[in-house]
Amino acid sequence: MNQDFKNTLETMAKDVENDLLVCFEKPFDAPAIIVSAMKYSLFAGGKRIRPVLMRKTCELFGGDVENARALSCAIEMIHTYSLIHDDLPAMDDDDLRRGQPSNHKVYGEDIAILAGDALLNYAVETAVDGLQRLPAQQQGNGIQALKILMQASGVGGMIGGQVGDVLAEDDDEMNAEKLKYIHSHKTGAMLTAALLCGAVMANTDSESLEWMRQYGEAIGTAFQIVDDILDVTSDTEVLGKPVGSDQEEHKTTMVSLYGLKSAQEKVEEYHRTAIEALSNLSIDTSFYIQMADFVCNRVY
Amino acid sequence: MNQDFKNTLETMAKDVENDLLVCFEKPFDAPAIIVSAMKYSLFAGGKRIRPVLMRKTCELFGGDVENARALSCAIEMIHTYSLIHDDLPAMDDDDLRRGQPSNHKVYGEDIAILAGDALLNYAVETAVDGLQRLPAQQQGNGIQALKILMQASGVGGMIGGQVGDVLAEDDDEMNAEKLKYIHSHKTGAMLTAALLCGAVMANTDSESLEWMRQYGEAIGTAFQIVDDILDVTSDTEVLGKPVGSDQEEHKTTMVSLYGLKSAQEKVEEYHRTAIEALSNLSIDTSFYIQMADFVCNRVY
Repeated sequence: MNQDFKNTLETMAKDVENDLLVCFEKPFDAPAIIVSAMKYSLFAGGKRIRPVLMRKTCELFGGDVENARALSCAIEMIHTYSLIHDDLPAMDDDDLRRGQPSNHKVYGEDIAILAGDALLNYAVETAVDGLQRLPAQQQGNGIQALKILMQASGVGGMIGGQVGDVLAEDDDEMNAEKLKYIHSHKTGAMLTAALLCGAVMANTDSESLEWMRQYGEAIGTAFQIVDDILDVTSDTEVLGKPVGSDQEEHKTTMVSLYGLKSAQEKVEEYHRTAIEALSNLSIDTSFYIQMADFVCNRVY
Repeated sequence: MNQDFKNTLETMAKDVENDLLVCFEKPFDAPAIIVSAMKYSLFAGGKRIRPVLMRKTCELFGGDVENARALSCAIEMIHTYSLIHDDLPAMDDDDLRRGQPSNHKVYGEDIAILAGDALLNYAVETAVDGLQRLPAQQQGNGIQALKILMQASGVGGMIGGQVGDVLAEDDDEMNAEKLKYIHSHKTGAMLTAALLCGAVMANTDSESLEWMRQYGEAIGTAFQIVDDILDVTSDTEVLGKPVGSDQEEHKTTMVSLYGLKSAQEKVEEYHRTAIEALSNLSIDTSFYIQMADFVCNRVY
């Protein structure tokens, strides 16, 4: 990975981390355990890709990053809640997340369910707080961006994708189309929303938004296929979760459907689609090119 | 119950029902089962008290009820999601809700968790849609009302109360103070939010908001004590859920702490507090007086 790009990601991730910490500085009128459970997963070493993408996009399209600050914290909280609920015994039943015991292993199932609920709810509280602080002429954009985020995380987006994933377990007729629905909704929707929210906060024209959408969908799908590939090719220590679990659970993945080589080719195909979409933009797209390279070549 | 009051409640509940149905008319880009699970609990015969309170309050304080339409659908979706998650095996493990099998008994735990998540998320989508449709000069109030709602449903409100409820199960030192926290947060917060949201959408002054808050907190607490009383005095058919389950689960309630008679006296005390708060308002408060009577004297 390009060193400058890596530094940019790390610096911006640290800023996000600090802002998230500030969100938890105030006292909460709640039993301590739930705040502890929320923080346990939110500060578990996530790479903050979604909020970084949102802020960087706002900046690259000429917006004031300050305006995207609250909403980018919100997207990370939503992402985190989805991981907590995904790991639950009734769902994927994962004991590990990023190399650490998953939320329900530490706090119990009941608190883990509520910690997820609380993070989704607090994401919206944080976003609405941010809306109130926006300059008056920016409020329309702020509301539009919040709508994009909530549609992406909702039943027509991430949750729908997770439902597809749950149904896939007992589905003897899994096919590429269903798997694509899962990928594009479970992962792609939120990555795309990060880009679009950032661009909307910078008052970007609708044509550019459409290219960003195509870019986001391509790298989102690539990201998920790489996940499937890593489950076969990586090792537990690097990955932070058990390797080979997809196969063990007889999960249909891009690798089980097409084989490793075809899956890798698909990643390259989506990489090309992403780069092509960028070529239509009039801004400096080097950050996005590097992001596409990063997503498609990551090893963890 | 006063017949006019009853008619008002029923007519307004029907309007809410219709608006909720409209929220589900559009096609969702999601597996059918999740939309079905969301609708199963949302259209399970709820009395729509929170949205009716919000709309009526907006009307009584001179606002345009149209402006509270989307947010009042949102509060009902949030209330419904909280019931779905409360009933889960890892939480209260209730098989029945309003006389029907609870969500996870019909759809399975995984889909029930996701249906709850999806309803909370869709509540926000619906509210934000509503924000976009507000007249420009009403958007500040709309954002303020959404903030009130999300704070009430969040970790400092309803979710905190539910956590307190979960912790109470293994707490040998349950006392009146902890029980009051649970009551005021688990139930009171959302009832109060319904009133405050309606009043804010009508551009109500802060002093009146404070009296409405006191009224809301009083009837919210009374509502919960009545719940505890009904668990002892009602029967399964009327209540729509098994009677005596609190005692069976060795749950600390106002009845187990104070006895039935004292609990009934507390309801009367909160009733008086509610009526006193109303006496400070300059609007016609007969609806709220009847609501207080209804909450304190209900038999189901």
